[in-house]
Amino acid sequence: MDSDCIFCKIVAGELPCEKVFENDHVLAFLDINPTSRGHTLVIPKEHSEGLLSTPAEALLEVASVLPQVAAAAVRATDAAGFNVLQSNGPCAGQVVPHIHFHIVPRHDGDGIGLGFRQTPVVADELARTAAAIRDAL
Amino acid sequence: MDSDCIFCKIVAGELPCEKVFENDHVLAFLDINPTSRGHTLVIPKEHSEGLLSTPAEALLEVASVLPQVAAAAVRATDAAGFNVLQSNGPCAGQVVPHIHFHIVPRHDGDGIGLGFRQTPVVADELARTAAAIRDAL
Repeated sequence: MDSDCIFCKIVAGELPCEKVFENDHVLAFLDINPTSRGHTLVIPKEHSEGLLSTPAEALLEVASVLPQVAAAAVRATDAAGFNVLQSNGPCAGQVVPHIHFHIVPRHDGDGIGLGFRQTPVVADELARTAAAIRDAL
Repeated sequence: MDSDCIFCKIVAGELPCEKVFENDHVLAFLDINPTSRGHTLVIPKEHSEGLLSTPAEALLEVASVLPQVAAAAVRATDAAGFNVLQSNGPCAGQVVPHIHFHIVPRHDGDGIGLGFRQTPVVADELARTAAAIRDAL
């Protein structure tokens, strides 16, 4: 537990939450500033900051319950789809430095601008970038 | 394999891609319309449409390589952070109906509007929604 972390305090019961799911390793609760009704956060109970520092086992625990929590959020809100978003670092919009997966129920024409701008690039540039990533693996 | 699916065709080698990672179950390649340099898609090779219809084993295979591919994309692009986004359904912005996880490298002040609008709600409404999701689990 990180004593400065509000999500660790939620896990420890020191701060309240609207809990929707809990097991030994994972907690799911509603975002208090939801993007849509049913906007749920799924977190490993063990503290880690982002995807790159989360133990593999903790990540697999989250992955194994994410579909079930998402399905319930979709059913409960009669949603037509949903996004899963996980942000790493302040530049990526991460506000609470305890890894969390957003589940955002979506409806046709809801106007939530979660898509992002995309720009076609020339094939050469794409090839150079792919090579750089392969080299970094 | 879904013979109408462009990602299945990429997996089968019938369409080209800028591949960055591959194992028996997972393929990672660059998005041809990237949001940022190094924008990578990670997919299970086996066809499924979204998170709710993907076999648990396929999802765990993706989860087990996602951090490693993301770390490489971050290193290769000197990024300060990244987003992971997975969209389900046309209303959520899913264009290709073969489950895929976007890895989007991010930099300070890059102006990528991946955050979404968030609205505080009253506690009562949050409690009702949480109860509805718990009931749906």
